[in-house]
Amino acid sequence: MTAHPRMSLNQATIRHADFATALRVTRQAGIPAIGAWREPVGAVGLPAAAAMLADSGLRMSSLCRGGFFTGPDTAAALDENRRAIEETAALAAAGAAGSAPVLVLVAGGLPEGDRDLAGARNRARDAVGALAEDAAAAGVVLAIEPMHPMYAADRGVISTLAQALDIAEQFPAGRVGVVVDTFHVWWDPCLGEQIRRAGLTGRIASYQVGDWITPLPPDALLARGLPGDGHVDLASVSELVEKAGYHGDVEVEIFNEDLWRADPVRVARRAAETFDGAAGVPG
Amino acid sequence: MTAHPRMSLNQATIRHADFATALRVTRQAGIPAIGAWREPVGAVGLPAAAAMLADSGLRMSSLCRGGFFTGPDTAAALDENRRAIEETAALAAAGAAGSAPVLVLVAGGLPEGDRDLAGARNRARDAVGALAEDAAAAGVVLAIEPMHPMYAADRGVISTLAQALDIAEQFPAGRVGVVVDTFHVWWDPCLGEQIRRAGLTGRIASYQVGDWITPLPPDALLARGLPGDGHVDLASVSELVEKAGYHGDVEVEIFNEDLWRADPVRVARRAAETFDGAAGVPG
Repeated sequence: MTAHPRMSLNQATIRHADFATALRVTRQAGIPAIGAWREPVGAVGLPAAAAMLADSGLRMSSLCRGGFFTGPDTAAALDENRRAIEETAALAAAGAAGSAPVLVLVAGGLPEGDRDLAGARNRARDAVGALAEDAAAAGVVLAIEPMHPMYAADRGVISTLAQALDIAEQFPAGRVGVVVDTFHVWWDPCLGEQIRRAGLTGRIASYQVGDWITPLPPDALLARGLPGDGHVDLASVSELVEKAGYHGDVEVEIFNEDLWRADPVRVARRAAETFDGAAGVPG
Repeated sequence: MTAHPRMSLNQATIRHADFATALRVTRQAGIPAIGAWREPVGAVGLPAAAAMLADSGLRMSSLCRGGFFTGPDTAAALDENRRAIEETAALAAAGAAGSAPVLVLVAGGLPEGDRDLAGARNRARDAVGALAEDAAAAGVVLAIEPMHPMYAADRGVISTLAQALDIAEQFPAGRVGVVVDTFHVWWDPCLGEQIRRAGLTGRIASYQVGDWITPLPPDALLARGLPGDGHVDLASVSELVEKAGYHGDVEVEIFNEDLWRADPVRVARRAAETFDGAAGVPG
């Protein structure tokens, strides 16, 4: 089997697979790249994970995820993110040519009992600033991921691409960028304008495709569908991202209970098929 | 009992009460105004509903709801909205002094199988244009309600206050305005700026307070909490709205299964208490 030459399978799509399994099923589906997660990497240890990634012949398109900056212990969060930066550098170096030293950052939500959304957003910005030099020293790009506004309270206070870019542009291009995840940003009336803006300043560090399905499942965290299963005009967004100059790997990252319960071999294959059919990514 | 002098109980908060019951429990809780819904009004018929409202001594703060413009049958949607405009005028005339002839508009979602979000948004704008003169002739204000982006696919394609204002400002102030509902817009990084903008052009036609609770309940449509029960800094938003020159009634509109199951007398009382305690509305 061969999948699309720019496709990457984000490990969250096959969440319960360990790192070895994730690498294997990705290769078996003919997918040339993987979006790695820190937890399965940590479970085997970084040196072993790097060796396994090198053996797989796969590219790494990003490491998920750093961030969670908004809680009470900023120092601990920064330390954790510095470890994630080192992991990103090591894995990108171990992956096949074209691997991307990109660390995805999720801002974090409002602390318990805290209603100061603007304050939490400022803490997220300050944390990115505190990490920018560490990332630069390691050759890593910090990629700020705006999350759907329905996660603003409990997961990610950065809600729009414009907001993420407002932060990223305070730092050199190539050091701090943004993630465009269709699931999170598809609804945004300013999407086209902000993707163009991101392109002009070279800020698109990662592009992820996922669809918005209705009705929203009982656990809204798991509301994502495979490309083509929902309401998002993925081809139009992919065209915007392409025109904005992003030509890297494109991840399929789907949080979905049904997919997590299924055989990862089949999920990887199905992700590759739907990517071909509906993601609208040029070859 | 007396509630806050500017409080209005939106009927959706006591959804299963018929119109007579809704008027009675609102009065019993000392709440001076009601946000009416078309379905319970229709169940008794407009003339009877107007007479009941007049007898109650309550103000009407708005009628919910018109809109749903994005489906295949635009002509039918417009006809339905013209009826809603007439109902709004009749009820506002019957309500106590200070009643507001405001018809709340929800845009509607994407039709089945349709991924053209921009197209649906344009249809919503065109429909408002088609109704603006009817509204003017009836002395009714059309109030466009931006809905939380999590409803963009299946309920309301107008997702931000900026978008709603972009439409409203194409028409005379006092004829087309917007609804500021904290539940829908609290997350918006541009909220302060857009409320100020709405104030400058006199566009705030309705202000509704509802809180954002976590975890998001299984049915995301029912994810709203009473003032103070969630993550929204209602006092700050109320201050912005006040400074923007809106001094009308403030509705408590909560879609919540637990509230709907409870005794409406107690719900009205509890809504009045939480409004006093957490809504931050000046007297």
